[in-house]
Amino acid sequence: MKLYTKKGDLGMTQLIGGTKVSKDSERVRAYGTMDELNSWLGYSITFCEGPAVVFVEELQEIQQCLFDAGRDLATVSDHPVYIFHEKNIDWLEKRIDFYSDHSPQIKQFILPGGSRTAAVLHVARTVTRRLERQIVALQKYSSINEVVLKYVNRLSDYFFAAARYANVLNKVDDVFYDNTREGFH
Amino acid sequence: MKLYTKKGDLGMTQLIGGTKVSKDSERVRAYGTMDELNSWLGYSITFCEGPAVVFVEELQEIQQCLFDAGRDLATVSDHPVYIFHEKNIDWLEKRIDFYSDHSPQIKQFILPGGSRTAAVLHVARTVTRRLERQIVALQKYSSINEVVLKYVNRLSDYFFAAARYANVLNKVDDVFYDNTREGFH
Amino acid sequence: MKLYTKKGDLGMTQLIGGTKVSKDSERVRAYGTMDELNSWLGYSITFCEGPAVVFVEELQEIQQCLFDAGRDLATVSDHPVYIFHEKNIDWLEKRIDFYSDHSPQIKQFILPGGSRTAAVLHVARTVTRRLERQIVALQKYSSINEVVLKYVNRLSDYFFAAARYANVLNKVDDVFYDNTREGFH
Ligand code: B12
Ligand code: B12
Ligand code: B12
Ligand SMILES: C[C@H]1O[C@@H](n2cnc3c(N)ncnc32)[C@H](O)[C@@H]1O
Ligand SMILES: C[C@H]1O[C@@H](n2cnc3c(N)ncnc32)[C@H](O)[C@@H]1O
Ligand SMILES: C[C@H]1O[C@@H](n2cnc3c(N)ncnc32)[C@H](O)[C@@H]1O
Ligand SMILES: [Mg+2]
Ligand SMILES: [Mg+2]
Ligand SMILES: [Mg+2]
Repeated sequence: MKLYTKKGDLGMTQLIGGTKVSKDSERVRAYGTMDELNSWLGYSITFCEGPAVVFVEELQEIQQCLFDAGRDLATVSDHPVYIFHEKNIDWLEKRIDFYSDHSPQIKQFILPGGSRTAAVLHVARTVTRRLERQIVALQKYSSINEVVLKYVNRLSDYFFAAARYANVLNKVDDVFYDNTREGFH
Repeated sequence: MKLYTKKGDLGMTQLIGGTKVSKDSERVRAYGTMDELNSWLGYSITFCEGPAVVFVEELQEIQQCLFDAGRDLATVSDHPVYIFHEKNIDWLEKRIDFYSDHSPQIKQFILPGGSRTAAVLHVARTVTRRLERQIVALQKYSSINEVVLKYVNRLSDYFFAAARYANVLNKVDDVFYDNTREGFH
Repeated sequence: MKLYTKKGDLGMTQLIGGTKVSKDSERVRAYGTMDELNSWLGYSITFCEGPAVVFVEELQEIQQCLFDAGRDLATVSDHPVYIFHEKNIDWLEKRIDFYSDHSPQIKQFILPGGSRTAAVLHVARTVTRRLERQIVALQKYSSINEVVLKYVNRLSDYFFAAARYANVLNKVDDVFYDNTREGFH
């Protein structure tokens, strides 16, 4: 079978189960954005060198989870059988707690960035939040697996915590947002 | 003439032909997303080193094509004269066939990533699919050059095939999505 | 206080002032996209090495400005007190003029790319334009601080000028879009 089937050339495509929908439907947008995040994680992994190598296995496991979650998003059925589990969220929360406990406490916003590893994780954080907005858009007109939405909400906090911890590992101080500065004029 | 004209400061802008539209119109979103993809390709080229240098010329030609295609998307007229040709699609299909023939056959999803070249091409793949969704959104209320939509559909398959071939060149094995794994708990 | 409060798990969130809105509302999309741009800038800074180190301080100041601007976007009130000032725009215009004066004049489109610094700045340019489209979408149904929209319009021109100047610093020639070429067939 060829990679390209030409069937989608006019803008329609198929879901799991066979339902035909527009490529611009909220559902396709949702799992398409999940695919974009997944690809960004594949890219992020290539920057997890030196001490930051600790993130490689975790990010790869998250990539696997996104395929599980994507399957639930791509499924339409009167009696959907979802596969994505709460236990994936428990795991994220443990990691967030660990990373938070090993980073300086903050009570202010920080400028996203620092080491390159931290920087790619902050981008991952904001793509995850874009994905979350898109899943909420889908949820407005169709029932979804709510565990997926919850996971994605927690996932952006995971990336925030991981980015901060990456800066700890790379001995880079986070820069605070300073709402009292004068700036350049 | 200065780069900034300030004319767009209130949110309106001009198409080719002079029609005024909102910057948030489906049409501007479509060629704006094409510009985003184009910029991502410019970035991707900077990672085509070593054996992956083979992609440089191709990606640059695709950048040129995106300007041709963008022109068709930015044109509104009662009798539009489109310039974007089917032959650009034939060329993509030849490249997809070549890359597919020189990569291991698969019957499963792969985790987007691997070498850095493969990783940036997977991101390009998903930005292309975001662009495709946006062109479909435009098509719902305005006629477009359908060759552009077809090209963009094929282009995401080109990036998938090219990403896999990049991993072949860099001797990196693609990791499969494993829907039977246990994962971290 | 834990990083994750779980309050947003069902898709709603809070603005400054306490109003509850859907995460998919135009307003949350707008400041969420601003956060994505901010994160991309944090990433871009990591590529400002060698002669391109001149951009570091400027990009960091823009990150600070995006938080000021984001605050105005996240505020809903009957009598909003906006903090984002015109002087930030004056500063951008001075930088655009400087960069334009120190780059070769052009009367054609260029392929986004060149040195890696130029390439990341072009991506920043197109993410800024995506943000601008989203702010225009918000403006359609709610009043905003118009200075923010104007700033974001100028900001994409700043990134264009800065990308071109980065190529000057790195001694890379911009490649023109050539609408007369034959291409690969
Ligand atoms: C708007 C907003 C944002 C906007 C910022 C808008 C802008 N200016 O550009 C964006 C989208 C960028 C954002 C991002 C995040 N935010 Co926020 N945000 C808010 C919100 C709604 C208002 C904050 C604000 O600007 N107040 C206006 C002015 C007056 O505040 P300020 O003087 O600058 O002081 C504020 C900051 O210092 C901040 N702050 C105080 N303590 C902490 C602790 C942490 C960990 C952080 C990151 C910030 C923070 O809150 C102060 C008062 O609101 C609050 C909730 C609320 N209703 O207050 C959440 C809130 C501050 N955010 C929160 C979180 C978790 C985040 C993120 C980590 C989410 C994520 N996973 O990406 C990121 C961090 C970004 C970063 N770079 O640091 C949490 C913090 C929880 C905590 N542990 O204290 C809050 C309280 C929401 C909540 N209940 O969950 N956010
Ligand atoms: C949903 C879906 C996606 C989602 C995945 C959702 C998720 N889980 O996160 C996303 C958007 C990520 C996706 C991406 C792609 N997809 Co897709 N996808 C589908 C779809 C609709 C359902 C697949 C599925 O999850 N089934 C549910 C469970 C039960 O399946 P599973 O046990 O995991 O087994 C599946 C995979 O092994 C896969 N598979 C089997 N053979 C092949 C061959 C290739 C080349 C690939 C990539 C996958 C693949 O299909 C199996 C059964 O559906 C099918 C079409 C259909 N209606 O079946 C196309 C389909 C599998 N996709 C296809 C393609 C081409 C792709 C992309 C290459 C497109 C692109 N250019 O980006 C990428 C590859 C991504 C990757 N990393 O490998 C083609 C494969 C054609 C072929 N040569 O066999 C299909 C058949 C659609 C079609 N007719 O064109 N896809
Ligand atoms: C559509 C369009 C775009 C599309 C391109 C669509 C595509 N083909 O993919 C996109 C969104 C990519 C784009 C981007 C930009 N554009 Co534009 N674009 C236009 C528009 C509406 C039509 C141009 C066109 O394609 N004409 C059709 C064919 C016949 O033209 P052409 O033979 O290829 O020749 C054109 C180019 O050479 C170009 N051109 C001529 N002089 C200059 C000078 C500069 C600095 C640039 C960048 C281009 C340029 O304009 C010619 C005729 O329109 C014009 C405004 C208008 N109504 O004409 C603005 C216009 C050319 N763009 C402009 C600008 C500033 C930009 C950006 C720098 C904005 C930014 N900050 O990102 C970028 C530059 C991108 C790049 N890589 O070079 C300005 C140029 C101002 C100036 N100094 O002369 C214009 C005139 C709009 C305006 N009044 O502000 N643009
Ligand atoms: C930290 C702040 O970010 C906002 N917020 C919550 N979820 C998202 C999202 N998916 N995208 C953008 N902004 C979001 C809320 O206003 C929250 O309080
Ligand atoms: C491989 C699968 O990806 C989905 N699909 C097809 N086109 C797009 C797009 N532009 N964006 C996201 N998903 C898409 C379809 O469901 C297809 O079967
Ligand atoms: C250079 C050209 O880009 C278009 N333009 C102006 N603002 C945006 C934006 N935010 N996104 C995409 N395209 C835009 C207009 O058509 C302008 O003339
Ligand atoms: Mg959240
Ligand atoms: Mg397709
Ligand atoms: Mg503009």
